[in-house]
Amino acid sequence: MSVILDLNSDLGEGFGVWQLGDDKALLSIVTSANVACGFHGGDPTIMRRVCAEAISRDVSIGAHVGYRDLAGFGRRAMDIEPDRLADDVLYQLAALDGIARSEGGRVRYVKPHGALYNRTVTDQAQAGAVVAAVAAYDPSLPVLGLPGSQLLRQADEVGLKTVREAFADRGYQSDGSLAKRGSPGAVITDPAVVARRCVKMATTGQVTAVDGGAVGVRARSLCVHGDTPGAVELARQVRTALQDAGVQLGTFT
Amino acid sequence: MSVILDLNSDLGEGFGVWQLGDDKALLSIVTSANVACGFHGGDPTIMRRVCAEAISRDVSIGAHVGYRDLAGFGRRAMDIEPDRLADDVLYQLAALDGIARSEGGRVRYVKPHGALYNRTVTDQAQAGAVVAAVAAYDPSLPVLGLPGSQLLRQADEVGLKTVREAFADRGYQSDGSLAKRGSPGAVITDPAVVARRCVKMATTGQVTAVDGGAVGVRARSLCVHGDTPGAVELARQVRTALQDAGVQLGTFT
Amino acid sequence: MSVILDLNSDLGEGFGVWQLGDDKALLSIVTSANVACGFHGGDPTIMRRVCAEAISRDVSIGAHVGYRDLAGFGRRAMDIEPDRLADDVLYQLAALDGIARSEGGRVRYVKPHGALYNRTVTDQAQAGAVVAAVAAYDPSLPVLGLPGSQLLRQADEVGLKTVREAFADRGYQSDGSLAKRGSPGAVITDPAVVARRCVKMATTGQVTAVDGGAVGVRARSLCVHGDTPGAVELARQVRTALQDAGVQLGTFT
Amino acid sequence: MSVILDLNSDLGEGFGVWQLGDDKALLSIVTSANVACGFHGGDPTIMRRVCAEAISRDVSIGAHVGYRDLAGFGRRAMDIEPDRLADDVLYQLAALDGIARSEGGRVRYVKPHGALYNRTVTDQAQAGAVVAAVAAYDPSLPVLGLPGSQLLRQADEVGLKTVREAFADRGYQSDGSLAKRGSPGAVITDPAVVARRCVKMATTGQVTAVDGGAVGVRARSLCVHGDTPGAVELARQVRTALQDAGVQLGTFT
Repeated sequence: MSVILDLNSDLGEGFGVWQLGDDKALLSIVTSANVACGFHGGDPTIMRRVCAEAISRDVSIGAHVGYRDLAGFGRRAMDIEPDRLADDVLYQLAALDGIARSEGGRVRYVKPHGALYNRTVTDQAQAGAVVAAVAAYDPSLPVLGLPGSQLLRQADEVGLKTVREAFADRGYQSDGSLAKRGSPGAVITDPAVVARRCVKMATTGQVTAVDGGAVGVRARSLCVHGDTPGAVELARQVRTALQDAGVQLGTFT
Repeated sequence: MSVILDLNSDLGEGFGVWQLGDDKALLSIVTSANVACGFHGGDPTIMRRVCAEAISRDVSIGAHVGYRDLAGFGRRAMDIEPDRLADDVLYQLAALDGIARSEGGRVRYVKPHGALYNRTVTDQAQAGAVVAAVAAYDPSLPVLGLPGSQLLRQADEVGLKTVREAFADRGYQSDGSLAKRGSPGAVITDPAVVARRCVKMATTGQVTAVDGGAVGVRARSLCVHGDTPGAVELARQVRTALQDAGVQLGTFT
Repeated sequence: MSVILDLNSDLGEGFGVWQLGDDKALLSIVTSANVACGFHGGDPTIMRRVCAEAISRDVSIGAHVGYRDLAGFGRRAMDIEPDRLADDVLYQLAALDGIARSEGGRVRYVKPHGALYNRTVTDQAQAGAVVAAVAAYDPSLPVLGLPGSQLLRQADEVGLKTVREAFADRGYQSDGSLAKRGSPGAVITDPAVVARRCVKMATTGQVTAVDGGAVGVRARSLCVHGDTPGAVELARQVRTALQDAGVQLGTFT
Repeated sequence: MSVILDLNSDLGEGFGVWQLGDDKALLSIVTSANVACGFHGGDPTIMRRVCAEAISRDVSIGAHVGYRDLAGFGRRAMDIEPDRLADDVLYQLAALDGIARSEGGRVRYVKPHGALYNRTVTDQAQAGAVVAAVAAYDPSLPVLGLPGSQLLRQADEVGLKTVREAFADRGYQSDGSLAKRGSPGAVITDPAVVARRCVKMATTGQVTAVDGGAVGVRARSLCVHGDTPGAVELARQVRTALQDAGVQLGTFT
């Protein structure tokens, strides 16, 4: 039985004259594109271009929704009221979906960005707000997130499809949680090691934890980064290694 | 044969803690609500509330699209590239439509706001950008605007339905154009006079121009303002006078 | 020996076309104006007008610095890195001071706004960032804040002058802390009661706590609100009651 | 008699996570840094870093003031009321000056950015607004701009010092105006040619116009760009060629 794995990455993260990452290169690597929707990054023109390119390459478009914080790129947790957060998510999701539709595609999933991603791992109210917005907009849209997170738990509870993701270059603790950034082994930079770990995850559902033991990491999607030239190259190597190992790459939608 | 006239007004023009106009009062008066989409005013929460209220009162929701200029409320003309403008309009339109749909309705027309409204009367490129965005999003959506404007001309050329509007409280020149703000008779403030003129427009298709002659003003929709308590009261009197004169009020969608 | 008390209030909290509160009315009541600096509210034109009016009335101008969050009016706590927060505060403070100087005055103190005010009561890093910005800009500027707060403690440690404030309409617990919003007695709305409490605070340094006992509240400045017509009227009554009780009103700068 | 020429370039044009140009490299080349002030680009942290680096290298700091338009990088002309524009300029200028002072320097001149630069060449009202803001803030600050522009003319009229600039890589018409972008010879890209022209301008006050004749271009400052790696290299070659030709490089302040 062949394994199918999705590769997702963040795209369209520029704003106006400013660029971040190499969207074109990443779209030749991933199967799912988390497209910024204008609140933490992205603008209508960038969104349209990324959607058009993603559609032409048959890459699945996801709404990468974030806090309204261009100055901080959505990386600063905010104590926003859940109702307002739900409205902000709905707005972003609808805007991207309309742009995708005008290019002949549509949004196929939702993933929170940055601090909102981290916050909704444990914050019930904010996780519930994201889930409510997705359910209000289109209850057939899956939510992509961290296994065990409040986000996926609540999405599941209201009947949304959930998709579990793993991280290509992050270290895991023995309980399956991510090793905290800054701790030893939290981020792995050697492309060969990263590629090998990704193949192991995909084919065995396990990865070596920071304490040396094996830990189960079952994920339908693998997140790769692309905000530096090195990151794009690493993503390409991960893709090649997975294909060489017989892992079939394909979106979950 | 009875005359049917639409009453439209700008709504949802607050932002965050700030309010502008009395949305609830206006929604009890108009048949079409031009809802700000977040670029010159409006935010996702305000948009949702106005949509919900409009739907419950059977008021038609229009996308009031504007320049990205919260600080200037979209009242300052901008030399924006047409392609970027089209993307900005598409984004706003899609965002509002998604919010309206999540509340059980949908966007039923598009009207430019403020400086974009004025600019697209004569600016071919910007008018074309607005038209292109509407056509790309949903070619069944009508465009509401000034008779004779580039906006309506180009909308018509690409096959979009166009809706002509007149202004309840503005003076007209003998050629049917609006008297320039600041010139004598450009803005009429006496509610009785305004109401009488609106009835005349609706029933005869004519209004007294600033030079005293009669001028034809054929419009399917009448724009009333609501950003001051006095304006709301004036709008109410216009509505009452029209109904008393046997004019049927109803949206064009 | 006569008591001197400062009355401070938040001013200039509009943005663009949007207004909040009655700046003119408040400037006839208070002795210190906390002027929004453009990040959570306020814009350059509003700032200049409020500064001009404050100077003409001999009201002291303070920089009311906040999170960069127009959509949330600076009322949502943000996990911003201290270094960036310090830069944001410095920017706001400098902008307001330059505007005040161009009108013939200058900024005479600093007070954090909204969520930043609340956060810096206990958050060492963010309190330190605000203090660092003030010290870097002008170490002779006092910081206005809550007695016992991290903000005042750290300001004091680096040699900044600190000014303690009390709240006219808030209930106090027996330990001198504010009763939590939503709890019984947390906000007092009867103008007569508020005025009486303010006179008692000013003349005895004590106020009746929510549990009925007396609690010491020694403050050099009293904060009154003005964002509603009722609040302005309440502030006026507080001023009158204090003057009738022989309390001299005057700024601390 | 030795010629002294200033080299100016735009710096600090990133925003949040986004970067534009190589600030460090440019600061090793130019003698004056036009620092973005947060309205079209730049943020408080970038402003502080650029100021610190400029001060350490003895590069003169100028306020590069622009329209409030992050999405368009200040490159889109706006019909902003002159009074509001003056306030926006004052705010930006004051903010940068405060940051520069906190780092031990100060703003030494003002230059409009992008569309505001172009607009104030001919627009009397907007040129007057920029001039009014500079005069209100500090009448000893020079204004850097295009010879013959409304900006310099009005600055001169109110007694501000004016500094004329030329462009290293732009073609000139026989009347001394810039060749319109898009026309033949409007932008010169060959580094050797650019360097030779700059030396000729600096030493003879003349340059070859697009029609082949000689045209007088007397400027105290030469503008070089740095928003691409190639541009930085070109700027470096211009500097070297000028120095090799015995032109002394030095700021005008």
